[in-house]
Amino acid sequence: MIPPSVNYVTCAMLKIRRIPIDTLGENVVYLSDLCQVYRVDAFKGGNKVEVGASGRQVIAVINVVHGNHLLEPDEVGLCTDAFEELGLSEGTQVVLNPTLSPASMDYVRNKVYGQTLTRAQLLEIVTDIAGHRYSRMEITAFLMACAAFMTTEEVLDLTLAMAEVGSRLDWKQEIVVDKHCIGGLPGNRTSMIVVPIVAAHGLPIPKTSSRAITSPAGTADTMEVLANVDVPIDRMIDMVAEIKGCLAWGGHVNLSPADDILISVERPLAIDTPEQMVASILSKKIAAGSTHMVIDMPVGPTAKVRSHHQAVKLRKLFEFVGHEVGLNLDVVITDGTQPIGNGIGPVLEARDVMAVLRGEDSAPADLRDRALLLAGHVLEFDTSLHGGEGFNRARELLESGAALRTMERIMDYQGPPPEAYALGELCHAVTAPASGVVTAIDCYRIARIARAAGAPVFKGAGLDLHRKVGDPVERDEPLYTLYSVIESDAANALAMVEADNAYAIQAI
Amino acid sequence: MIPPSVNYVTCAMLKIRRIPIDTLGENVVYLSDLCQVYRVDAFKGGNKVEVGASGRQVIAVINVVHGNHLLEPDEVGLCTDAFEELGLSEGTQVVLNPTLSPASMDYVRNKVYGQTLTRAQLLEIVTDIAGHRYSRMEITAFLMACAAFMTTEEVLDLTLAMAEVGSRLDWKQEIVVDKHCIGGLPGNRTSMIVVPIVAAHGLPIPKTSSRAITSPAGTADTMEVLANVDVPIDRMIDMVAEIKGCLAWGGHVNLSPADDILISVERPLAIDTPEQMVASILSKKIAAGSTHMVIDMPVGPTAKVRSHHQAVKLRKLFEFVGHEVGLNLDVVITDGTQPIGNGIGPVLEARDVMAVLRGEDSAPADLRDRALLLAGHVLEFDTSLHGGEGFNRARELLESGAALRTMERIMDYQGPPPEAYALGELCHAVTAPASGVVTAIDCYRIARIARAAGAPVFKGAGLDLHRKVGDPVERDEPLYTLYSVIESDAANALAMVEADNAYAIQAI
Repeated sequence: MIPPSVNYVTCAMLKIRRIPIDTLGENVVYLSDLCQVYRVDAFKGGNKVEVGASGRQVIAVINVVHGNHLLEPDEVGLCTDAFEELGLSEGTQVVLNPTLSPASMDYVRNKVYGQTLTRAQLLEIVTDIAGHRYSRMEITAFLMACAAFMTTEEVLDLTLAMAEVGSRLDWKQEIVVDKHCIGGLPGNRTSMIVVPIVAAHGLPIPKTSSRAITSPAGTADTMEVLANVDVPIDRMIDMVAEIKGCLAWGGHVNLSPADDILISVERPLAIDTPEQMVASILSKKIAAGSTHMVIDMPVGPTAKVRSHHQAVKLRKLFEFVGHEVGLNLDVVITDGTQPIGNGIGPVLEARDVMAVLRGEDSAPADLRDRALLLAGHVLEFDTSLHGGEGFNRARELLESGAALRTMERIMDYQGPPPEAYALGELCHAVTAPASGVVTAIDCYRIARIARAAGAPVFKGAGLDLHRKVGDPVERDEPLYTLYSVIESDAANALAMVEADNAYAIQAI
Repeated sequence: MIPPSVNYVTCAMLKIRRIPIDTLGENVVYLSDLCQVYRVDAFKGGNKVEVGASGRQVIAVINVVHGNHLLEPDEVGLCTDAFEELGLSEGTQVVLNPTLSPASMDYVRNKVYGQTLTRAQLLEIVTDIAGHRYSRMEITAFLMACAAFMTTEEVLDLTLAMAEVGSRLDWKQEIVVDKHCIGGLPGNRTSMIVVPIVAAHGLPIPKTSSRAITSPAGTADTMEVLANVDVPIDRMIDMVAEIKGCLAWGGHVNLSPADDILISVERPLAIDTPEQMVASILSKKIAAGSTHMVIDMPVGPTAKVRSHHQAVKLRKLFEFVGHEVGLNLDVVITDGTQPIGNGIGPVLEARDVMAVLRGEDSAPADLRDRALLLAGHVLEFDTSLHGGEGFNRARELLESGAALRTMERIMDYQGPPPEAYALGELCHAVTAPASGVVTAIDCYRIARIARAAGAPVFKGAGLDLHRKVGDPVERDEPLYTLYSVIESDAANALAMVEADNAYAIQAI
């Protein structure tokens, strides 16, 4: 009745093959439905698989390839990201193991059911996320559980965990200042003015910035119009020793890699909580070695923070976590009711920045004033400066040309831009449909129009504002000019303008 | 200063191409990075795209293909699911439109932030999910928001919404009974005994079942060993008129399609809430036209419901929603401490079922008793039957052979199975490492071992239990036999058994 045992083979190998597909974030492996050694049905439950050999593994979800057009039955295909992460050459023999969720998903489930998480649990979750062991669904589950509720202690612990996982910079300086805007205000390119002012004063301000993800320009995109921003870390350290400042792209430094992954999921979901914002910004600043930081928090009906009440609550959360992690914060609540400066898009914003630094008549006053306000707050971190003198000192450094000379040294040090970027040649004036006074400009809509026009993919794309809130305008006078490099962008932007040009005009 | 306007092309077309990749659930379109008319960067924010022409559209996420190995620059590739859903032939010219989240995602965000949802909002969400307009991340966000908290009113409204979206069956009968097990207990194949008993009595019981997703066998998988289960709806209606019962696969009927999609996300996340379970089961039963239903709710330390307290709470939620939607429910809390019957896997379970129906000596008593208990509860729905007589009537129908004859009529009516399934030829006895008494069998582990052995992909795979809880066993005597069809499955199951054979044995 009980049959005897038999012996079995225990290991089935497949050859890896790079599949030239960029899955935009999630590791995917491709398995043929003709595969003889693994049953693709075994993976249909949606579980992930660990692929690898000789101590190197990568975790991925499975896609099944029909027939042998893309893949031989004895091959396993890896999307470009997974192939790179695995780091083995094509044809290497690998083993597939169905893999369950990382153990830390149990904590996520507990959080979903209403428990709070400990520092150690958050560290384990963040470590697994940074190690690409969470699927996008699992990351979503974590983010949603956190969005439902998070204690201030949890925000602190998440911040520390995110800072701990990844690289950390040490500038060997007592004070390292920084300035960060929480975002959402087109044209608010103050960093490129604040950094040279503060560096000219002598405070170390090693500014690393991101490229735009959902906005028409990031500081890195705009700075790249003027100089190389691809600066290795050792060169940044030299710059800070010599000039006190830099304006570099932060992509090399791998600060808070978990945060980059979390953001890649938050973005398409458009879930943006104060808790995640605080943990995201402060973890990156801790890792970047900052000791003092000014946070620019624009408040306005179409900005990221929409009410003063919300702004104060967010400021308190920043201050609590900042205090606990030993980061000296000054949160400045600013006007976020309309775009800052005139240009929106890298080339146009770089033009505005240089006009302010050069003291040209065409320099947008609002951009200049905002930069001086924030630089003044940063300079107040200098204990040797008389309290309340920050703003005057900032103005002095700007008006004397010291800031401009520092900016030129930064540009020299970082080297020339990768190419000469010019304004897009396809342009179109958007005019007022009626006479009156501009009563509002929708920041969110302006950003979307500028992106549709091609910014920041094309640095010369974007839009140039000719009227701001309070300005009178006659019918058919231009409100702004659209710039594009390719025609489909121009058409998309125009279609968007026709639906809603982002301006509210009231008859006088 | 303000340049004149120019004109632009407004519409860019690509030819569709079927890419033979099954992405296991999420619509993906493939775009070449050499594409001249769309900039792939525009999609890097993670937003979805709507692809289509002439009134037919499909929503998908973008993958970027490098070079022109898989795709020409003027083509857009569609994964098999998306291609089928779109229903246009290869080479058709289509337009791509970046698309934002469906408007109902605003409700999901509100729910994340703590609001409750109205019936209309839940209906809009469920409609969008069933229409494939939610990404897996968005579905996860919805599920997590619901897992955090749900009012009983929301559970009711979700149930109604899920029942409303999709097909609905109408049997034109006053009483249509059903029997459903909430799952998690290997070998608990009582439906195949309850249906013939109840049908033999004369109550209409049109049973549609699913195939196994995470378990080693579903009722549809097991019934398919004995008969065809691929039964069109009109034939099911004829069967119910004639024989009163059927045992068919429910895949044709498209009842609560949103539920199928929600489950495909819940499964890999292993998030299983009472609220989703109630909405899932009851929405399908409403859509299936049931009026009366017995729910088998096994409780045990390794079953789905792990405590009596939890079971009572879940029962009350079932009863509340059932009452509100006009479904007459009888929730039976049963013993879920160990597997039911001896065989685990389609062929072995079918053997046990037929042994019970035929009254053979080898028939597992626990399977027979459980089936009679549940059939008795179902028969109590018959108002003409004396209260408390259900169990006796069920036993009478089983012992007289009436149930067996009805089962044979059902098998005849549904037709022969697609092929003759035999027990796997690779077998291995798993023996007791020491003498003693079996004190526990881990249901969850047994199910995983049976799946590793190949069930239900191979109907002949699985395991056959020779000892149950309370049985004495001598060292080296067999606890169970593993059956596999292919060697890698056998090896995997054995490796799993070596780590933990699921049996607890205590020395006497």
